[in-house]
Amino acid sequence: MNTLALYKLIANMEKLDLKQLIVTAPMNIKYLTGRMIYPGERLVALKVDSDGSCRLIANRLFAQQPLPGAELIEYDDTDDTGKLLASVCDSGEVGVDKDMHARFLLPLMEANHEIVPRLGSLAIDRTRMVKTDREIELMRKSSLTNDRALEATVGKIKRGMSETELADIYRKEGETLNAQGESFDSLICFGSNAAEPHHETGIDRLKDDQAVILDVGLMVEGYCSDMTRTVFFGKPDDEFIKVYDTVKRANAAGRAAVRPGVPLKDVDYAARRVIEEAGYGRYFIHRTGHSIGTEVHEYPDVSATSVEICEKGMTFSVEPGIYLPGKFGVRIEDLVVVSDDGCETLNSLDRELRTI
Amino acid sequence: MNTLALYKLIANMEKLDLKQLIVTAPMNIKYLTGRMIYPGERLVALKVDSDGSCRLIANRLFAQQPLPGAELIEYDDTDDTGKLLASVCDSGEVGVDKDMHARFLLPLMEANHEIVPRLGSLAIDRTRMVKTDREIELMRKSSLTNDRALEATVGKIKRGMSETELADIYRKEGETLNAQGESFDSLICFGSNAAEPHHETGIDRLKDDQAVILDVGLMVEGYCSDMTRTVFFGKPDDEFIKVYDTVKRANAAGRAAVRPGVPLKDVDYAARRVIEEAGYGRYFIHRTGHSIGTEVHEYPDVSATSVEICEKGMTFSVEPGIYLPGKFGVRIEDLVVVSDDGCETLNSLDRELRTI
Repeated sequence: MNTLALYKLIANMEKLDLKQLIVTAPMNIKYLTGRMIYPGERLVALKVDSDGSCRLIANRLFAQQPLPGAELIEYDDTDDTGKLLASVCDSGEVGVDKDMHARFLLPLMEANHEIVPRLGSLAIDRTRMVKTDREIELMRKSSLTNDRALEATVGKIKRGMSETELADIYRKEGETLNAQGESFDSLICFGSNAAEPHHETGIDRLKDDQAVILDVGLMVEGYCSDMTRTVFFGKPDDEFIKVYDTVKRANAAGRAAVRPGVPLKDVDYAARRVIEEAGYGRYFIHRTGHSIGTEVHEYPDVSATSVEICEKGMTFSVEPGIYLPGKFGVRIEDLVVVSDDGCETLNSLDRELRTI
Repeated sequence: MNTLALYKLIANMEKLDLKQLIVTAPMNIKYLTGRMIYPGERLVALKVDSDGSCRLIANRLFAQQPLPGAELIEYDDTDDTGKLLASVCDSGEVGVDKDMHARFLLPLMEANHEIVPRLGSLAIDRTRMVKTDREIELMRKSSLTNDRALEATVGKIKRGMSETELADIYRKEGETLNAQGESFDSLICFGSNAAEPHHETGIDRLKDDQAVILDVGLMVEGYCSDMTRTVFFGKPDDEFIKVYDTVKRANAAGRAAVRPGVPLKDVDYAARRVIEEAGYGRYFIHRTGHSIGTEVHEYPDVSATSVEICEKGMTFSVEPGIYLPGKFGVRIEDLVVVSDDGCETLNSLDRELRTI
């Protein structure tokens, strides 16, 4: 067990008045135990009690070595995992993490009707959301690599190439820089495709006078990067220039709002207000950002509904965008890490409007 | 909506006495709607009522076109998805699929305490488990491609190469054959690593007189293949030869047991009995197989606890193995499709002991 992580987890459980917690997401289990177990459709669970006792439940197939600080409970494919989970729980409230699947949760409830499951993700999510110095160092490295890969990719944009071809170029640039892989499937959008923020990279080919959104990230030593740049292929018109400038200012305003003690919803609003004041509020149709670390989307979001407050060591994206249906979209995304008195921006690739 | 799939689903819901069902797994939704939506951490759900009415709930970001046969309900990141889900459910029992996450299930229960969730996966799982002729054609094509990629890979095994290097060779062979990618991360195990059935492919290098397990699969036109062969690098001793022969006979016995009307647990037992009778029963530590289709692990398993019965069009693996800790492992896996009076084996790569 990672003692420091467990200590933080138990403190967070106490704040939530949780005496017991079941953690099932493989990345949560890795954070606490140091072990990455890929369970497929099988159950892997770590049961943590507020007195610090831990039990790791894993299929015998995964052949776990003894885990210092935890009891190892192995089962076979023919065992009833609902009853097994119930056997390590006391009646009453049991916190579970948000990714626990119905196929484990409902049989647990069935096995002991006095168990009352409650979403207890905040305990582990808040433990993971504040990065250690070592984690921040790796986040810097990942984003630096991403800057380089994206810069090289932008230099290779050519008329007639498809979104998929440009995504392949980026992937190869990442491989050349020794990234482990991508942290998510690149979103490359040409022209009006860029007006759909979740358009899938496809076969459309680049034509003159189209905007190009590149939303890309790499995995480096287990940590994710994630950035977006929008460039213009051809000569942008006045509307594009105005929209681009608005998004650039929104990105800067969002990052400028970050410092310890500031609610994340205020960071969202700082970026959003710039876009609203420019008259494009209804075209900024997503949250301003999301936390990131060993996974590309971590808790908490940077949105109007976020209840969390900036704390030193938190790492998240600031990625405002404006999407004009049928025309184009612009998004500019950087990762930041909260520092003592503000934030450090992990991406350094230029944000000025770039035409190709 | 895929009308035929919906018709089968409703019939299966009726057998389970389910009037309403919430489907959240992206592949289930694709099967029923034809649309693959990658929701990330967001909710995508299809609510199906036994009268055939369907509602697709998706974040506005995913910009769904109207879906003939279903009502489209869009929401924003700031909406409460628990309340939204509750608003499309009647009080009483609601089936949910096995992959539904606690972060959607518990808020649904919280939003309406009169909703009683019940695992209703069988309704959709049994719909997907019987493949259409078109699906079987694609499964054949995927396994044929896998046979070729594995044959080419075995021809390139050399002393001193690492498990990872051999896995890379296989991946490139798949690319050369125009596969979309691998259906799972290859499991390549040398020597005593092969005694751990879920050993991760790693940096160990091939030495003389080691067994090599290759458990590999490809994606071809959306359908998965999955096969295992065990070859020997050097000169096998008598124990290896005996174990190999036992596993080969178990694989053949498992496949020979398959025909419509035979319980899957009997298929498991047919393979298992060969291994038990040879005295290796305690070293066959996993189920005999799993169903497969658009996903590499589908319902149902081929195991002692399976309640399903072979039906024409079902596709699953038969993959007995013997694992002698510290020594070696042998596994031989083929995919089969249940036919009118037996089964068709989708893999044709030779199963005789091959030494290199």
